Amino acid sequence: MNARESLRRIDAAAAGTARARYRAGAIEPTSGVAPGFTQANMIVLPRDWAYDFLLYAQRNPKPCPVLDVTDAGSPKTILAPGADLRTDLPLYRIWRNGELVEETANATTAWAEHPDLVAFLIGCSFTFETAMVEAGIEIRHITDGSNVPMYLTDRPCRPAGRLHGNIVVSMRPIPASRVADAAAGRFPAVHGAPVHVGEPALLGIRDLAKPEFGDPVRVEPGEIPVFWACGVTPQAAVMASGVPFAITHAPGHMFITDVPDSAYHA
Amino acid sequence: MNARESLRRIDAAAAGTARARYRAGAIEPTSGVAPGFTQANMIVLPRDWAYDFLLYAQRNPKPCPVLDVTDAGSPKTILAPGADLRTDLPLYRIWRNGELVEETANATTAWAEHPDLVAFLIGCSFTFETAMVEAGIEIRHITDGSNVPMYLTDRPCRPAGRLHGNIVVSMRPIPASRVADAAAGRFPAVHGAPVHVGEPALLGIRDLAKPEFGDPVRVEPGEIPVFWACGVTPQAAVMASGVPFAITHAPGHMFITDVPDSAYHA
Repeated sequence: MNARESLRRIDAAAAGTARARYRAGAIEPTSGVAPGFTQANMIVLPRDWAYDFLLYAQRNPKPCPVLDVTDAGSPKTILAPGADLRTDLPLYRIWRNGELVEETANATTAWAEHPDLVAFLIGCSFTFETAMVEAGIEIRHITDGSNVPMYLTDRPCRPAGRLHGNIVVSMRPIPASRVADAAAGRFPAVHGAPVHVGEPALLGIRDLAKPEFGDPVRVEPGEIPVFWACGVTPQAAVMASGVPFAITHAPGHMFITDVPDSAYHA
Repeated sequence: MNARESLRRIDAAAAGTARARYRAGAIEPTSGVAPGFTQANMIVLPRDWAYDFLLYAQRNPKPCPVLDVTDAGSPKTILAPGADLRTDLPLYRIWRNGELVEETANATTAWAEHPDLVAFLIGCSFTFETAMVEAGIEIRHITDGSNVPMYLTDRPCRPAGRLHGNIVVSMRPIPASRVADAAAGRFPAVHGAPVHVGEPALLGIRDLAKPEFGDPVRVEPGEIPVFWACGVTPQAAVMASGVPFAITHAPGHMFITDVPDSAYHA
């Protein structure tokens, strides 16, 4: 059975099984895990910052398509009613005054520092990877078992209140003959259409071999680097804006929801 | 020249011209005015209520598709840089403690009561009416020169913070043979696809002749009542939730933006 065949069969228990492993302490990038289930970026902020962030997302919907917002103080989401957002992601980052201070597999202690945290769950480009693999398009970082490369661009987001920052993009090398298929953008709620095709310098990216987040991947002759808006963009805003306190997923280590990818088809 | 022909030619100055007339005191429903330009519902709330409302909109995107949110204290929007939201709608409603207390053609005095008002501009089903008329589908309330009929349903929105309420729908009678065309839903950001076709009782609507907002319209033999989510839904939330202070457009009396309808095509 090859990868394409395995992806066609959706295992209904796969999302919950993966979350249980992460809750027990397993750490891995989630690209290719629980295929067919929507994965989400996460940023968690005190209620005092929640309006600025929700407005930032509204004003920058390509990198920040909001899938759910929790009630203040609750680690529960409608995207996976049995999940606990404090423990069920494989790896978290803790931020203080815009600086990364800790990576941890369990955010329970950090979460307890504030009584009114709001978690934002944001669409992730991993969601369309299953469809691309099914269409016969190789996803290089899945083939190589590495994390998707992500780059901080020089393109500013539209600011909102105290929040500002540049767009972060993920990159997948695509054969020139399949760029049009990859660009079809069937999932507008989850970074479906690329924001840029080829010419990394025009996004302010100097060296594809040195991504700001994730791992570099091979770009073979005849392949074009294709860029999608990335849900790590909020982490760039946390850094640029000096946000006092935030918890996020670690890049590539997403929250796996119970929602099938097909829910976000165009 | 019939209505279909006139709608094909977009007059670039029409939006600004209409706003200037409203600024000078003219009052009229805006359906069919400045064809080809996106119209928007408006709700204006103190900053203290802005997060609850933005979250309400995020959780109820069908009736509340957000097109823009102003900075607190500013009556300016990127949807029409020359416009003043305090004066450029034909008719406003002022709400106190969830009750309608005034209708006025000029909201400047009410707007001055709070230094930190935030205006939310929300997609409007008028946006797709031009496309429907171009497709040869009669829009009855345009034909009759009346306001679109709107009904408060028994379907609750998903609550957010202090805000709750039921969905409001607009209704257009459509010939049975054209319902599929009308339902194609080419404008997802602006109430494109209907939420309900036929069977008003299943939405809790008792009498099509008695809309809660707007004017009743004729439903001819062979026509089906088709219902779209309506941007008056926030006004229903203001009423149901006892919001202390709000300014809204009067139903059917929308803000006409400088953005072409085509910007919101699927």
